[in-house]
Amino acid sequence: MDIEKVNSMDFGEFVDVFGNVIERCPLIAAAVWSQRPFSNLEDLEKHFFAFIDALPQSGQEGILRCHPDLAGRELQRGTLTADSQREQRSAGLTSLGADERRRLAELNAQYRARFGFPFVLAARLSDPAAVRRELARRLPRPPAQELRTALGEVKKIGHLRLAELLGAHPATL
Amino acid sequence: MDIEKVNSMDFGEFVDVFGNVIERCPLIAAAVWSQRPFSNLEDLEKHFFAFIDALPQSGQEGILRCHPDLAGRELQRGTLTADSQREQRSAGLTSLGADERRRLAELNAQYRARFGFPFVLAARLSDPAAVRRELARRLPRPPAQELRTALGEVKKIGHLRLAELLGAHPATL
Repeated sequence: MDIEKVNSMDFGEFVDVFGNVIERCPLIAAAVWSQRPFSNLEDLEKHFFAFIDALPQSGQEGILRCHPDLAGRELQRGTLTADSQREQRSAGLTSLGADERRRLAELNAQYRARFGFPFVLAARLSDPAAVRRELARRLPRPPAQELRTALGEVKKIGHLRLAELLGAHPATL
Repeated sequence: MDIEKVNSMDFGEFVDVFGNVIERCPLIAAAVWSQRPFSNLEDLEKHFFAFIDALPQSGQEGILRCHPDLAGRELQRGTLTADSQREQRSAGLTSLGADERRRLAELNAQYRARFGFPFVLAARLSDPAAVRRELARRLPRPPAQELRTALGEVKKIGHLRLAELLGAHPATL
C-alpha cells in the first residue's frame, strides 16, 4: 500500500485499516485522519506518536490499559485482537508450559498492582525468557520512568504494525 | 450497581464495564479510571466529559468517527456494538423500508462529506422521522457549531449508557 492510497481513504476506510495501530484505540487513528495528507510512512507515524505525547497522563495510562497481558487471560480466552495474537505467537507466548504461564501471571499481577496498567512490551521482538527478564527488570522502577518506557513500547508496536500495513521494512528500533 | 462497587474495580473490570460509554473509545474509560474514587454517578460522568473537552479538535473529531451511521452499513452487516444496536432498534431504525433507508443513507453521505465525521444523535430518544428531520436541519450548519452539537450528542449517549449501567434514572436531557 503506498501513501497515495492512504491519502485517498475516507475516514471509515482509514479507521478500518489503521484503527489498531495503537492497540484497541481506534480513536487515535480516527484523530490522525484529520492531519492528512501524509508525505510518507514516517510522517503518518509522527502524527500517531504526537497524539499520544499530547495526551494528559491519564490518557497515556489509558492507552496502556487497553493492552492485554502477555500470555494472560485474553490469550487463554481467545479474545486477543488479531494483531496481538500474531505478536504473542511470534514471541512463543502461545505455547508456554503451565509453570511458565503461572510465573508470568504472577509477575504481570505484581506489575499491574504497582503501576495501575499492564506490562507492555513489543513482543514480536522478544521470546519468553526475555519477556520474563524484562518484566522483572522493570518491576521495581519509579512509576514516572516506567510510564515513559511503556509508552516507548507502545510506539515500537505501532511502528511495526504501520510498517507491516504499508509493506515497508521496519526501521531498526 | 452502586458507586462503592465502581470504586472497587480494577482497571480491567472498569474497562470491561464502562469501555463503551463513549462508543468504541475504551481509551476514555481507561483514562477516567485514573480519577477514582468517584463520589457518585454525576462525578463519574463529569470525568468522562472533561476528558472529551480537553482533547484537541482532531481527538474530538476522532471520537465522532468511531460512531456508526444511523441505519447504515454496520447495522446492515450486524457489526454494531451491542449498545448501538439496542439504541438504533429503540429508535425504530432497524425496521426501515428500503426507500427510507436509501434516503437516510444519502443524507448521511452528504453529512460525512461536509463535516468529515458521521452524523451522531442520541438515537434512543428519537424515531426515524425525527432522525431525518434533525439530519436535514444540521447539514447546512457551520462546521464549528456542528462539532459542538455532535459532541453534545456523544455526551447524551454517554449519560444514558452510564445511567443504565448504574441503574439510575437518567436526568432530563
